[in-house]
Amino acid sequence: MKLAETDERKKLSKKELNKLAKQQKKAEKKLENALVTNNLLGEQENEDISAGLYGSYGLVQSKEKKMINFIDVDQLTPSLAENEVWIRGRLHTSRITSKACFLIIRQRVHSIQGVVYLSEKISKQMVKFASNITKESIIDVCGILKVSDQDIERCKCTQKDVELQVTQIFVVSAAEPRLPLQIEDAARSRADETDLSVVNLDTRLDNRVLDLRTQTNHAIFRIQDGICDLFRSTLHQRGFTEIHTPKIISAASEGGANVFEVTYFKGSAYLAQSPQLYKQMAIAADFNKVFTIGAVFRAEDSNTHRHLTEFVGLDVEMAFKFHYHEVVETIGAMLIDIFKGLQAKFQHEIETVAKQYPCEPFQFVQPALILKYPDAIRLLREHNVEIGDEEDLSTPVEKFLGKLVKEKYKTDFYILDKYPLAVRPFYTMPDPDNPRYSNSYDMFMRGEEILSGAQRIHDPVLLTERAVLHKIDLEKIKAYVDSFKYGCPPHAGGGIGLERVTMLFLGLGNVRLASLFPRDPKRITP
Amino acid sequence: MKLAETDERKKLSKKELNKLAKQQKKAEKKLENALVTNNLLGEQENEDISAGLYGSYGLVQSKEKKMINFIDVDQLTPSLAENEVWIRGRLHTSRITSKACFLIIRQRVHSIQGVVYLSEKISKQMVKFASNITKESIIDVCGILKVSDQDIERCKCTQKDVELQVTQIFVVSAAEPRLPLQIEDAARSRADETDLSVVNLDTRLDNRVLDLRTQTNHAIFRIQDGICDLFRSTLHQRGFTEIHTPKIISAASEGGANVFEVTYFKGSAYLAQSPQLYKQMAIAADFNKVFTIGAVFRAEDSNTHRHLTEFVGLDVEMAFKFHYHEVVETIGAMLIDIFKGLQAKFQHEIETVAKQYPCEPFQFVQPALILKYPDAIRLLREHNVEIGDEEDLSTPVEKFLGKLVKEKYKTDFYILDKYPLAVRPFYTMPDPDNPRYSNSYDMFMRGEEILSGAQRIHDPVLLTERAVLHKIDLEKIKAYVDSFKYGCPPHAGGGIGLERVTMLFLGLGNVRLASLFPRDPKRITP
Repeated sequence: MKLAETDERKKLSKKELNKLAKQQKKAEKKLENALVTNNLLGEQENEDISAGLYGSYGLVQSKEKKMINFIDVDQLTPSLAENEVWIRGRLHTSRITSKACFLIIRQRVHSIQGVVYLSEKISKQMVKFASNITKESIIDVCGILKVSDQDIERCKCTQKDVELQVTQIFVVSAAEPRLPLQIEDAARSRADETDLSVVNLDTRLDNRVLDLRTQTNHAIFRIQDGICDLFRSTLHQRGFTEIHTPKIISAASEGGANVFEVTYFKGSAYLAQSPQLYKQMAIAADFNKVFTIGAVFRAEDSNTHRHLTEFVGLDVEMAFKFHYHEVVETIGAMLIDIFKGLQAKFQHEIETVAKQYPCEPFQFVQPALILKYPDAIRLLREHNVEIGDEEDLSTPVEKFLGKLVKEKYKTDFYILDKYPLAVRPFYTMPDPDNPRYSNSYDMFMRGEEILSGAQRIHDPVLLTERAVLHKIDLEKIKAYVDSFKYGCPPHAGGGIGLERVTMLFLGLGNVRLASLFPRDPKRITP
Repeated sequence: MKLAETDERKKLSKKELNKLAKQQKKAEKKLENALVTNNLLGEQENEDISAGLYGSYGLVQSKEKKMINFIDVDQLTPSLAENEVWIRGRLHTSRITSKACFLIIRQRVHSIQGVVYLSEKISKQMVKFASNITKESIIDVCGILKVSDQDIERCKCTQKDVELQVTQIFVVSAAEPRLPLQIEDAARSRADETDLSVVNLDTRLDNRVLDLRTQTNHAIFRIQDGICDLFRSTLHQRGFTEIHTPKIISAASEGGANVFEVTYFKGSAYLAQSPQLYKQMAIAADFNKVFTIGAVFRAEDSNTHRHLTEFVGLDVEMAFKFHYHEVVETIGAMLIDIFKGLQAKFQHEIETVAKQYPCEPFQFVQPALILKYPDAIRLLREHNVEIGDEEDLSTPVEKFLGKLVKEKYKTDFYILDKYPLAVRPFYTMPDPDNPRYSNSYDMFMRGEEILSGAQRIHDPVLLTERAVLHKIDLEKIKAYVDSFKYGCPPHAGGGIGLERVTMLFLGLGNVRLASLFPRDPKRITP
C-alpha cells in the first residue's frame, strides 16, 4: 500500500476489519457445516464410507504430538512407487471431473499432482470436500505413490513421473476464497506476460506474502541467502572478523543531508547512512580486517529502479601495509568467490529465476579487471561521449561504459579505480602522485555500481583539513577525527548493497524484486 | 560521552579541535625535526651509522607497493631463531637503559619484546629515537629473532621464549603522547583492581577505540563473531534460510509503547522492536524455517546492566507440523550447538576473558532441560518464595530460580515452558488444555533471560479476538492479521539477544561490555 493511500485506509480499516473478521467467521462456519453435513450424510442418509479420512484439523494448537512421517515433495520419485506417503503442502490448483478431483499440491519450489478418485474407499462426499478446498490452503495429504506417464497437467509439476492416489486429505489452514493475486500470474515469465495477466509491482508488493510464494521468489531469496553466506565464509577464510555497528548515531557524519532523524527519549538522533565510521574505529582498535552485514538508511527521495531508503549493506574494512590495492584486490577476489560460489551451488535457482526474468548468464574474468578512471574516460571519448577529465559519471554513462567494458574485456564485473578527488567524500585519501585524483574506487556489475570505496584518511590533521575544504562542520565529526589520534593503520574498504548484487547478478531489472519487504520514499508497508 | 554533556561539548569542540589540530601539527613537526636533526647530526657532527634504519614513514598514502614480508607475532617462536623478520604492531610500552631501549610490541592478542641495543650498527640516535616513540603508535620493526631465557619483562608477553634484536624501526602512525586511558589499566583483572587503577565504564566507552585494544576485548568480540557463525551454520544445516527484514515500519505492532519514531520524508515511521511480523510473513510465504540477524530497537528507559536501546537480535521462526515443541527442541539444540562450538573453538579466548572477568565455566546438559512454569513455581515455593500461579517472574526471582535450577539440574541453561497466558503478548497461542496458560517459553542462561518465544496464533479470527481483549487498535495490526488470511502453517519462534548471550556465556556482568558501541538511554556516542 502506498503512503499516499494511508489516510484513506485508516478511515476504512476498522470497518473493513470487522467485515473481514465476519467474512472469515462465515467462511469457517461454512466449512464446518460442510464437514458436519458430510458426516451427518454419512451417518444418517447414505453412510459415508470415507468418514474420518478427510476433514479439517481445526486450529492446530499443539494439542497432541501426532506421529506422522511426512516426506518432502522433491523426494517423491518412482523409487518410492506403491508406497503410502504423507505430504504437507499448499493446494496450488484443483479441478473436478465426474469421478475424480485433481489437485496440484505445491511445496515451496516443488509440486506433485494428487488425485481423489471416486472408489470403494473414497466417497462422493470426500471427492466433493477435496474440490471445495480453497486454493492456497495448507493441506495434509496421504496417498499411494503411482508411476504415471507424463500428461499435460502433470507436466506443470516438478514431479512429472509420479502422482499421488489420495487416500486421506485434511485441511491444516484454510485460505480465503478470494485471492488478491493468482500465484500463476505472479509466476508468469516476463516474455509471456499479456496486458491482462501481468501482476504489477505494487500489487505484488502490497500482497507480498502471496507474491513471495512463487518458485522464482523462493529461488531469488535462496540465492540472496547464498550471497551472504559466501560473503562471510570467504572473508572468514581470509581472517576477517564479523562485527556489529550501531544504527542509531548522534550526528550525521557527512553533513546531515539524506539522513533520517529519530526521536531519542528527550533528544534526537539519526539513522546511520553507513557503518563506515564504526568499521574504521574497529580498525583503529586493531581488529585488522572486519566485515558487517546490516541495515543502512538513506533518506534520499530517489524513485528509481535501483534506490531503496533502507537496504542491507555488506561492508568490509581492512588495514593494509603500504598500498590500498591490497584491499582492492581482496574485495575483487571476494566478489569473484561469491560469483563462482553462486554459479556452483545455485545453478538450479539461477535457471528458475531466468525462466521468469530472462537474462544472459553473469560473466566475469579472474582476477577482477581494474580500470583506471582516466582510461575509462578515454574509452568513453573513443565512443563519442563528451566528458571532462574530472567529471563524475552519470548513471547512463556508467551503463554505457559497462557495455563498452563488456565488449572489450568480456566481463560483467569490473573495478574503476582512481576517481577524481573532487567527486568523492572528504575522508577520501588523495592520490600521492596527482592531487586531482584519489585512492578511491567503485565496483560495477552489468554497468551499475554495487560498491563504493576508498583508502580513508587515517591522519587527523589531513582529515580536518579536508573536512574544512568540504565546508563540513568540525563539531559534527569530532568523534570521527578523534578515532585516529591514538595511532591507526592505513586502511581502506567499501560497502556493497546486497539487493543490488542480487538484482544485477540475476538481471531482475528492479531492486525491489531483490528485497523481501522493500522500503522506498513511497512505501513502508507491509 | 554522556548525552547530558553534549551541550558543553559542542561549545568547546570547535576551539578544542583547532587546538588539537595545532598540537598534532606541532607534535608531527617535532618528530620531523627530530628526524632531520638526527640525520643532520649523522651527516655533520658525528656520522649516524644507523641513518636510514629508523625514522617515520610519514603519511602512508599508497605511494609505492613496498615488498616487505611481514610475519604475525604469534608465529615468532624458537623455530625461527636467528632469522631476520619484519613485524608491524603497536608500541605497547618502552623503557630505556644506558645502552638499550626495550620495547614491548603488541599485535592484537599477541606480544613480543624487542630490544634496540647500542652497537656497531645501532647509533645512540637510533636508540633515542626508539625511546621517544609514543605508546600506542604503530611501528614496523625488523630484527633478528633470538631465543632467550624468560625474564620478568618478557613474561608479560605472549612470546616468552624469544625476543627481537631490533635492526630497523619505523613509525607508521604516531599516537598522541597523552592517552585518555592506559591499556594496562583497561586490561587489569577485576580481582586486581584498586581504586586508583580501575577504569570506569564510562571512560572505557567514551574512549572505546583504545579500550577495545585490550586482549580481553579482542577475545570477547572473536567469541561474539563465533556465536553468530555457529548460529548460522547450525541453522543452515537444519534447513533454515537467512532473511533480512525491514527496520523502518509504518506502525508499532504492540500498541506503540517503547518504540522510536522516525521522521520519514513528509510523514513518520517507527523502528522495529523485533523482526517478528516479518519472520511470520516469511513463514506464511512458505519459507518454512527462517532466521535473521539484525538490529532491534527498544525505546525503553531501562538503565540496568542488561538493557540496551539497540541490540543485535538473533531471530528464528519455524513452521511445525503438530506441536510447538518441535520448534522449542530445535532452538534448544541450536543453542547447545553454539555452547559446544564455543567451548571447542574458542577455549583460548574464553580463558583470556576469564583472566579479566573471573567466572565459572558455562555448564549445560543435553538435551536442553525443559521446565514447566507450574513446576518452576513449585520449586520457588519450596524455597520460600511467595508467588502466585499466574504471576510473572521478576528479575531477582528469575535469578534465584536460575540458582535453584543449577543446584538441582547442574545446568546454566534451561527452557521455561508454558507461561501464564495473561503475562504474554496478544499473539501468543493459548494452551489448548488450560486456557490460563500458553504455548510460550523463555530461555535462560545463568538465571537471566536470553530468549522469549511462543507458538504464534496463525488464525486471523482468533488473533483478532485476542487483540481486542488486549485493547489493541485493530487498525494498527491490520497488515499483521491479513498475513494469515491466505493459509499459514502453524509456527513458533523466538528472538535472542546477541549481547546477552555473549555477556552471560562469559559472565561479564554488564551487557555494555558485550557490545562494540553500546546504546542505552544515556549514550549514543561514540
